[in-house]
Amino acid sequence: MASKNVPPPSTLDDPVYRTGVIELLGILAYGEISACERLAEDAKMAPDLKTKVEIAAMATAEFGHFEKLRDRLVQLDEDPYETMQEFAPIFERFHRQTAPSDWLEGLVKAYVGDGLAADFYREIAAYLDPETRSLVLDTLSGTGHSDFVVDAVRGAIEKDPRVGGRLALWGRRLMGEALSQAQTVVAERDALSTVLVGGVDHPGMDLAGIGRMFTRLTEAHAARMEKLGLAA
Amino acid sequence: MASKNVPPPSTLDDPVYRTGVIELLGILAYGEISACERLAEDAKMAPDLKTKVEIAAMATAEFGHFEKLRDRLVQLDEDPYETMQEFAPIFERFHRQTAPSDWLEGLVKAYVGDGLAADFYREIAAYLDPETRSLVLDTLSGTGHSDFVVDAVRGAIEKDPRVGGRLALWGRRLMGEALSQAQTVVAERDALSTVLVGGVDHPGMDLAGIGRMFTRLTEAHAARMEKLGLAA
Repeated sequence: MASKNVPPPSTLDDPVYRTGVIELLGILAYGEISACERLAEDAKMAPDLKTKVEIAAMATAEFGHFEKLRDRLVQLDEDPYETMQEFAPIFERFHRQTAPSDWLEGLVKAYVGDGLAADFYREIAAYLDPETRSLVLDTLSGTGHSDFVVDAVRGAIEKDPRVGGRLALWGRRLMGEALSQAQTVVAERDALSTVLVGGVDHPGMDLAGIGRMFTRLTEAHAARMEKLGLAA
Repeated sequence: MASKNVPPPSTLDDPVYRTGVIELLGILAYGEISACERLAEDAKMAPDLKTKVEIAAMATAEFGHFEKLRDRLVQLDEDPYETMQEFAPIFERFHRQTAPSDWLEGLVKAYVGDGLAADFYREIAAYLDPETRSLVLDTLSGTGHSDFVVDAVRGAIEKDPRVGGRLALWGRRLMGEALSQAQTVVAERDALSTVLVGGVDHPGMDLAGIGRMFTRLTEAHAARMEKLGLAA
């Protein structure tokens, strides 16, 4: 229950919060559209038509997420493409560092990325104004294709156990790159960080809280890897 | 009004009709998924993020069409991927012959292909059993992105009129290739052709009717080219 001493939730009247939320929506939107693009690219490596279609379905789901985030930016009177464009270098760097060499690596990347994004959305939701929060919670409802990925990865490991070692390494590399890019963003974007850490007149996490968030994200990543049959 | 002499509409109890409808759904489904795939590929050539997103939105719409056709195949107790796979060579040949050299050619291809598919769906709907018919009519509702294509093509021609000549040639080549692949299909697939031309116990077009259908498809293509500001 809210005590009288707790500051009111952030509102878009606060210019720092507003800038931060717009940056946040921009980065999430770019993340979704670039995930969609990469999955479409990965689909070409699929070993058969059914797998290709499953990967295309995941790409389509990411596009649906993107649309919601973009529409919120439009609602806030921002040019969504201009806002997103600023974050292009981060994602292009990330994708360059983590180009899958086959469709299984592509699937693991989508699964890990999707899961991480959903966890992150859930973590930050509490610090957002109600409208942005419900949008973000809505977006994290997931692509709903995790069963397919789990079956495909476990099936491939069963056929050739060496695949498990390779994909486990791959998962660690993905997480490492994602955290490294996240740190760059936090370091470069004051307003965006303020959304998370809070400002003078709105609540946020303290540094210890951010540390705990990263621990939770890492633990959830490990659980996801385990579900795929991979050592985290 | 139906006279007593007109045979009843086709039903799936007729094995030739059933085979033909399954082939038809298979070819349409493969067409949609391959259109989706090619658009995703073309999106990479987009000059800016907004255009990329518009092309990705078209790809997503094609994927939605594909899903409906696939689900109907599943409903009919067929393996959709096996059914579709047979038609892969036709579309791969078509796409090899019509690989766009830039994003504008990709847009024109999507626009022309989409329009042609919608017209064809409308033409054949009358010869289908009610359930397949309503699915096909539902699918042809279009990707709803034609305004974007019209604006983009007209804008590009305004900037550089030579683009108009190149794209007009391109449109003719697309239509020529599409008709040539369609003829191959009709020649190779008896059951599928029977859906159109009719069989002993169900109505269909006669040869003159098929000729008129091709005339209508060609005229509609010319109208679409004109809408883009291109000579057909």
